[in-house]
Amino acid sequence: MSAAAWPPLRDELRGVEPYGAPQLDVPVQLNVNENPYGPSEACVADIAAAAAAAATTLNRYPDREFTALRTELAAYLSRDAGERGIAPAQVWAANGSNEVMLQLLQAFGGPGRTAVSFAPTYSMYPEYARDTSTRWVAGRRADDFALDLDAARDLVKTEQPSVILLPSPNNPTGTALPPEAVGVLCEAAGDEGIVVVDEAYGEFRRGGVPSALELLPSYRNLVVTRTMSKAFAGAGLRLGYLAAAPEICDAIRVVRLPYHLSAVTQAVALAALRHAPELLGKVDDLRRERDALVGWLRAEGYDVADSDANFCLFGRFADRHAVWQGLVDRGVLIRETGPEGWLRVSVGTPDEMAAFRAALSDVNGVRA
Amino acid sequence: MSAAAWPPLRDELRGVEPYGAPQLDVPVQLNVNENPYGPSEACVADIAAAAAAAATTLNRYPDREFTALRTELAAYLSRDAGERGIAPAQVWAANGSNEVMLQLLQAFGGPGRTAVSFAPTYSMYPEYARDTSTRWVAGRRADDFALDLDAARDLVKTEQPSVILLPSPNNPTGTALPPEAVGVLCEAAGDEGIVVVDEAYGEFRRGGVPSALELLPSYRNLVVTRTMSKAFAGAGLRLGYLAAAPEICDAIRVVRLPYHLSAVTQAVALAALRHAPELLGKVDDLRRERDALVGWLRAEGYDVADSDANFCLFGRFADRHAVWQGLVDRGVLIRETGPEGWLRVSVGTPDEMAAFRAALSDVNGVRA
Repeated sequence: MSAAAWPPLRDELRGVEPYGAPQLDVPVQLNVNENPYGPSEACVADIAAAAAAAATTLNRYPDREFTALRTELAAYLSRDAGERGIAPAQVWAANGSNEVMLQLLQAFGGPGRTAVSFAPTYSMYPEYARDTSTRWVAGRRADDFALDLDAARDLVKTEQPSVILLPSPNNPTGTALPPEAVGVLCEAAGDEGIVVVDEAYGEFRRGGVPSALELLPSYRNLVVTRTMSKAFAGAGLRLGYLAAAPEICDAIRVVRLPYHLSAVTQAVALAALRHAPELLGKVDDLRRERDALVGWLRAEGYDVADSDANFCLFGRFADRHAVWQGLVDRGVLIRETGPEGWLRVSVGTPDEMAAFRAALSDVNGVRA
Repeated sequence: MSAAAWPPLRDELRGVEPYGAPQLDVPVQLNVNENPYGPSEACVADIAAAAAAAATTLNRYPDREFTALRTELAAYLSRDAGERGIAPAQVWAANGSNEVMLQLLQAFGGPGRTAVSFAPTYSMYPEYARDTSTRWVAGRRADDFALDLDAARDLVKTEQPSVILLPSPNNPTGTALPPEAVGVLCEAAGDEGIVVVDEAYGEFRRGGVPSALELLPSYRNLVVTRTMSKAFAGAGLRLGYLAAAPEICDAIRVVRLPYHLSAVTQAVALAALRHAPELLGKVDDLRRERDALVGWLRAEGYDVADSDANFCLFGRFADRHAVWQGLVDRGVLIRETGPEGWLRVSVGTPDEMAAFRAALSDVNGVRA
């Protein structure tokens, strides 16, 4: 083997850039869909106390089954889940919803199996497939980024995927699933496949848009994932979770690394959940700010995808990179992602959005 | 597909029990090789302060490159690494050394590739291989659990593995590698394979037993893994790490999940590293206790494997499960693992070891 082939990385990984948005030090950060509102002093103090309590026995392994955390996550999810609620045995969690997704593909994907989603969509999905040697098939969304349900069902029937990834709202477009999509695709997948509805941004959905959690009693092959990174303002905590049939949680348990959730992570997540009313209290503000942003961009003449998330995709630009750079030069970092010609901006505080609007207007003035 | 085949788990995972020692509530826990000494009040306070500082910006994603933590881990490892030391670019970390191992196999193993180790050895190794669809080949150790270096080299030449897993000391036997093993197997592996020396228990090695860290300048395909779970008394923290050529760290970066180390994990690990003299201060006590344990067991007539770890493997028992259960009945939990007829006991405090000795003598008295 020649020196150029060293180190002996798998062929499909050679020359691949690691995933990640550029981390630039500019004043207004609207690039990774973080919640702009940090925790209160009371919440920080509670987190510190929880970490201290966990630290007193830090020499011992954590509860491998994170029983207390599963119980509290189930209680939280039950608010969106209809009459039957969610039981702790239906909940699983990991270090970020990306570890949840990896575990799902380790258990249900892999060599000889296929995962399907519909592009444009979250750019990590094909990486989860690649890293588990799962075949990746991406259908296309309609021009307005909505799921074409007939085409989606046809693709599922043709490809017979063992995993279907359906973000709702979708990233980077902000598009929620049509209400009937989950049922149709769970039926199409049958017992050979699981349907993963990724509700990472679910709490930001507009009024009247349902959560797939309500459908769990109807479809045993349905998995609904959530995260504490977004609405819960806990991106630094790295806690993703899911609700599904207990048999699916048991299946993940076979591939999870033992003690994957640290004692500190479990304790801090529990503390944050005790402050849910505060942390989630900003969600309504962010939804209003989001709707105002969509309205302003449309009034300015941009194309804007309908958004049920805390970000929106807008365009179209002949040279989106120049617009992105122009905003960076004015101290505003957004994300150059999604289909060519579009840009994605996260919803921040009113001041941050004012800075974004001023910077975008200025960039356009220069370019006009 | 029949109802019995639901959920659609991969075939090789069906009916598999999740990895993990039984978690029983008995007074003396000597089953998972934890460090029995918890952190001081000062260390707990520093951890709480670090968690609080991280929590103030918990709404933001963590440093994806965990630069500060890599720097401090490099400084710590440099103590064992000879003149050249270890640079931050040579260090990688993840949630437990089991995530480090999984990432190594994702990058360097996978379908069509082979991982090799030498049994009896750590029972998670074949699980990492299975979960990355890497072919698993286990050579055999000699009767005294030492590595037969000629046989090992022959196996490497025959199987051409892309990953060789060499724990030193080995778990569950406690056996360190012969000093020349790393060089011989790095040469045998060549540019087509990496050699992973798993030093999870490395700090407990006896005087005169070298660390593979010293050999990093000589072999670019050498990877040395460590953990904060054992000598550092941080099992609840879940922080594993490695030292290797920077090109190997760059390769792992392609398969790592973005933001895999939470802001809280990074902050708490940094706080624990600041207390390294205290946390590591018990290592010498544990080594003495280990040597005394080996001596006592041998004086009692048991076979005991030489141990460079904080546990030892002893036997042989016609019915090891009965002995294990007898100890549990007397309030002492050890581990029923390793080759048939042997049992593994962790090194605890003097009081815990006295309880173990009394319980074992009592079990034997009943059985005699």
